[in-house]
Amino acid sequence: MPATATDPGTARPRSWWGWGYTDAHPDDAECVATGSLLPGTLARPLPIPQVADLGIGRPAVAPPSSLAHLVAADPEVRAAHAMGKGYRDVIRALRGRPGRIPDLVARPTDDREVADLLDWAGDHGVAVIPFGGGSSVVGGVEYRGDAHRAVLSLDLTSMDRVLEIDKGGRAARIQAGALGPVLEDQLRPHGLTLRHFPQSFEFSTLGGWLATRAGGHYATVHTHIDDFVQSLRVVTPAGTSESWRLPGSGAGPSPDRMFLGSEGALGVITEAWMRLQERPRHKASTSVVFADFHRALDAVRAIAQSDLNPANCRLLDPGEALLSGASQDGSTVLVLGFESATAPVDDRLATALDLARAHGGRGEAPAADRAAADGTASADGTAPADAAVSAWRSAFLRMPYLRDGLARMGAVVETFETAATWDRIPALIDEVRTEAMYAALKATGHQATVNCRLTHVYPDGAAPYFTVAVAGRPGDEVAIWDDIKAAVTDVLHRHRATVTHHHAVGRDHRPGYDRQRPEPFALALRAAKAALDPHHILNPGVLID
Amino acid sequence: MPATATDPGTARPRSWWGWGYTDAHPDDAECVATGSLLPGTLARPLPIPQVADLGIGRPAVAPPSSLAHLVAADPEVRAAHAMGKGYRDVIRALRGRPGRIPDLVARPTDDREVADLLDWAGDHGVAVIPFGGGSSVVGGVEYRGDAHRAVLSLDLTSMDRVLEIDKGGRAARIQAGALGPVLEDQLRPHGLTLRHFPQSFEFSTLGGWLATRAGGHYATVHTHIDDFVQSLRVVTPAGTSESWRLPGSGAGPSPDRMFLGSEGALGVITEAWMRLQERPRHKASTSVVFADFHRALDAVRAIAQSDLNPANCRLLDPGEALLSGASQDGSTVLVLGFESATAPVDDRLATALDLARAHGGRGEAPAADRAAADGTASADGTAPADAAVSAWRSAFLRMPYLRDGLARMGAVVETFETAATWDRIPALIDEVRTEAMYAALKATGHQATVNCRLTHVYPDGAAPYFTVAVAGRPGDEVAIWDDIKAAVTDVLHRHRATVTHHHAVGRDHRPGYDRQRPEPFALALRAAKAALDPHHILNPGVLID
Repeated sequence: MPATATDPGTARPRSWWGWGYTDAHPDDAECVATGSLLPGTLARPLPIPQVADLGIGRPAVAPPSSLAHLVAADPEVRAAHAMGKGYRDVIRALRGRPGRIPDLVARPTDDREVADLLDWAGDHGVAVIPFGGGSSVVGGVEYRGDAHRAVLSLDLTSMDRVLEIDKGGRAARIQAGALGPVLEDQLRPHGLTLRHFPQSFEFSTLGGWLATRAGGHYATVHTHIDDFVQSLRVVTPAGTSESWRLPGSGAGPSPDRMFLGSEGALGVITEAWMRLQERPRHKASTSVVFADFHRALDAVRAIAQSDLNPANCRLLDPGEALLSGASQDGSTVLVLGFESATAPVDDRLATALDLARAHGGRGEAPAADRAAADGTASADGTAPADAAVSAWRSAFLRMPYLRDGLARMGAVVETFETAATWDRIPALIDEVRTEAMYAALKATGHQATVNCRLTHVYPDGAAPYFTVAVAGRPGDEVAIWDDIKAAVTDVLHRHRATVTHHHAVGRDHRPGYDRQRPEPFALALRAAKAALDPHHILNPGVLID
Repeated sequence: MPATATDPGTARPRSWWGWGYTDAHPDDAECVATGSLLPGTLARPLPIPQVADLGIGRPAVAPPSSLAHLVAADPEVRAAHAMGKGYRDVIRALRGRPGRIPDLVARPTDDREVADLLDWAGDHGVAVIPFGGGSSVVGGVEYRGDAHRAVLSLDLTSMDRVLEIDKGGRAARIQAGALGPVLEDQLRPHGLTLRHFPQSFEFSTLGGWLATRAGGHYATVHTHIDDFVQSLRVVTPAGTSESWRLPGSGAGPSPDRMFLGSEGALGVITEAWMRLQERPRHKASTSVVFADFHRALDAVRAIAQSDLNPANCRLLDPGEALLSGASQDGSTVLVLGFESATAPVDDRLATALDLARAHGGRGEAPAADRAAADGTASADGTAPADAAVSAWRSAFLRMPYLRDGLARMGAVVETFETAATWDRIPALIDEVRTEAMYAALKATGHQATVNCRLTHVYPDGAAPYFTVAVAGRPGDEVAIWDDIKAAVTDVLHRHRATVTHHHAVGRDHRPGYDRQRPEPFALALRAAKAALDPHHILNPGVLID
């Protein structure tokens, strides 16, 4: 197996310590320029960390000869599988204190090999961390503690094929290790799309989406990966689970829903039949400006409670709008978009605009069904129609890179998301903002920037997504972030807002999750895990002990 | 507690042995007239069974004095809780051989009483059968076997209140024992509706819908009760589980989805926060006639794969269309309807009609948005627009009563449903028809009527619903039906079609379910049950042993 961290789809080099492609990382000058916006950051960026400086030792175990051809043990590969890509991970790498480096990285090519690796690991007390694109921002793919003799990172990305397409039924059997672009490239010739575009799209896999119940970037209806699942194939230490391809079923609790969100703790998802969609032919989008954030919330609720089902309905608070270039004047901006493969969407956009205007929004419908007219389609299937939309989209994909640039300037900068019912939303957002600023100030002595946007909206609530940035104290960044996160998690708990809407639980959210999860469900989940993973080797520490 | 079997909402008398209200049962003359349509049935109807003839003895246990006020032991109440309302139940009652009569029937009024009853039952080896409206058609609410010292039917219908309404967030906290009309009556003054209308609407409860993953009568999108659940409260022997009210969450596998479809085997659902909808203001419906059933399937698939989301898209095969009066000439009929609380639906109906015509359908759009124009709304919120739609609707609600009338004429008559992907549907329907007719002929010597309709449609498949009717052999009706069901279940299994789309598993579907369910999921479910129900008292025999 090559020791490379090159992206299988693009041949571009992947960063072992930071987000995405190394060639897309901000250079030192850009880091300094970005850092200058945040008072108190460093004068010069922290150096890019080197694997050689980590002093990675020999693995504690060797694989059996029958599996050796699947397994790598060189430091570069192991370092690239040590952690996810959250701020905690990036700053630990920058400070030379990454999480425990796995002893081995295996890249199985089929279910038999996955099962053999699990058997071997179970027999030898080796923890197995299923690994897709490695984009976890919640500590989902690292090992903590020392209860296991060794750690194996199980990288699924060699299983990345679309194995079957049912064009008439608009579904495909897809291997779990396919990264977003890799699977879309295989579907495109058939005129079909999974239409699931999380921010991590390029760097996350189908299996990762399924194991973490990922949310796509569409605002309503079909955006949760859960709803696209027709059937799952999951290799567990107790055998392989394969559900039937069914459009709907009432035969007992859904087997698939038990594995969705199980974060590798119950088994390794190796493939799924996924529901697909035709590529949209009609699109229209625009932005609406509000002077008042709370009135904008009312507008969004009205749109979410209609049956207009916007593809995008993303509300940017003034800070978020400023940061992304969508607005310069302290306005709140609503990015609104509609799509359809069946019929024009102008009427839906116009009706949504009417609802927004009734709550004080200012915005115009674009002249025509733009995307359909000019035939363009961007990488993720959306087509921005105006400058604010376009500015926001570019910023959206660039954000994680900028976060890493700020981290190199010694900033503490991270995002987190939640969801709550509408009655909670206004106070929740206000209190998270206040508590995050207070916690940041207390921990650092600096003023923090706290921005908020709504990423997903529902008839009964919304998902606010927060970004916090503040100058850190050299060497204390992780502790500072943990303090801030603990403070906002308390706010979430007080408002009965979920500890995560679409980033999963991992290890970082465990304290909040343990408080949120009903205790009888914890009993059931623990029992289910003991039945499927009797040697307790699967992703120890996530979800349940 | 009164010993009556009177409906709490209407004060109309409920039948202990047959469907619904006794005053709606066909009289002897109607039974004879209906039976005459089915060659080989009896000349005179079987007499209506009497509780006094069942020889119901004394209960094997007495409740503790602290709970005695909640518990009834008189024969009428116990007989009415002995079984569900499937054909197997009705014919067993008619033949004087009902399932095991429960020793006691308890009607708790709050969670504390439910927990106390479970504690007492656990301590005394008493099986507990949660009971809502008692409309199970799969043996979901009866006790089979003799592993328990006694049987307690836990009737939840005294817990039937809407406890809270969040009008802005369109949600309500509803007790699980509320029958359909009881909860809708409490929501109507607020302009809201749960909009869940299974055929059993009048005789089934919210808790029953949740425990069985019920399907409403709408064809697409929001029709499964699962999707309306914001949070659940479930009393288990190991404690009470209460999930948070969340519009969406990615925090681990969904706790609610484990209890949805658990059929009382993991706990007793006592209340839920449910997502509501505004009452629709715009409606339009029509019917489309096809000369060929298979071309009609293609039309339905095209409509299901659009994003038009019809409220009704019910395809009736020629026999079904004839039986319901929707067509007399051997045509296939598609009942098509649209609803919206936001915007007119005429365009959507017109586009759907275009799709149907492109596949050989003949039909016209109604002149105007009918229901909105005349302001009428029927009991279940739909408003038929033409004669075929109207005929079909009346027949739909009358069908279970007619089934019981036919049962009194010695017929074997029952329905069953399934779901499969589109590629399976045409052959599946043909083979089920053939095998059911063959099995019926072999078992009875008579020609059976086998009709099919599609009740729910999806982009990736559909749910066919079958009705089988054939003259029985006196006294052998149960065995004959079991033979027919086993034959069609084999067809379903061969096509990987689910053993139930929305009728649940109960005890009748266990053999098919056991073959369908992935074995690792069975291990997990068994472990979860052992953790939550350590004395194995909860609805023994459903889902899992």
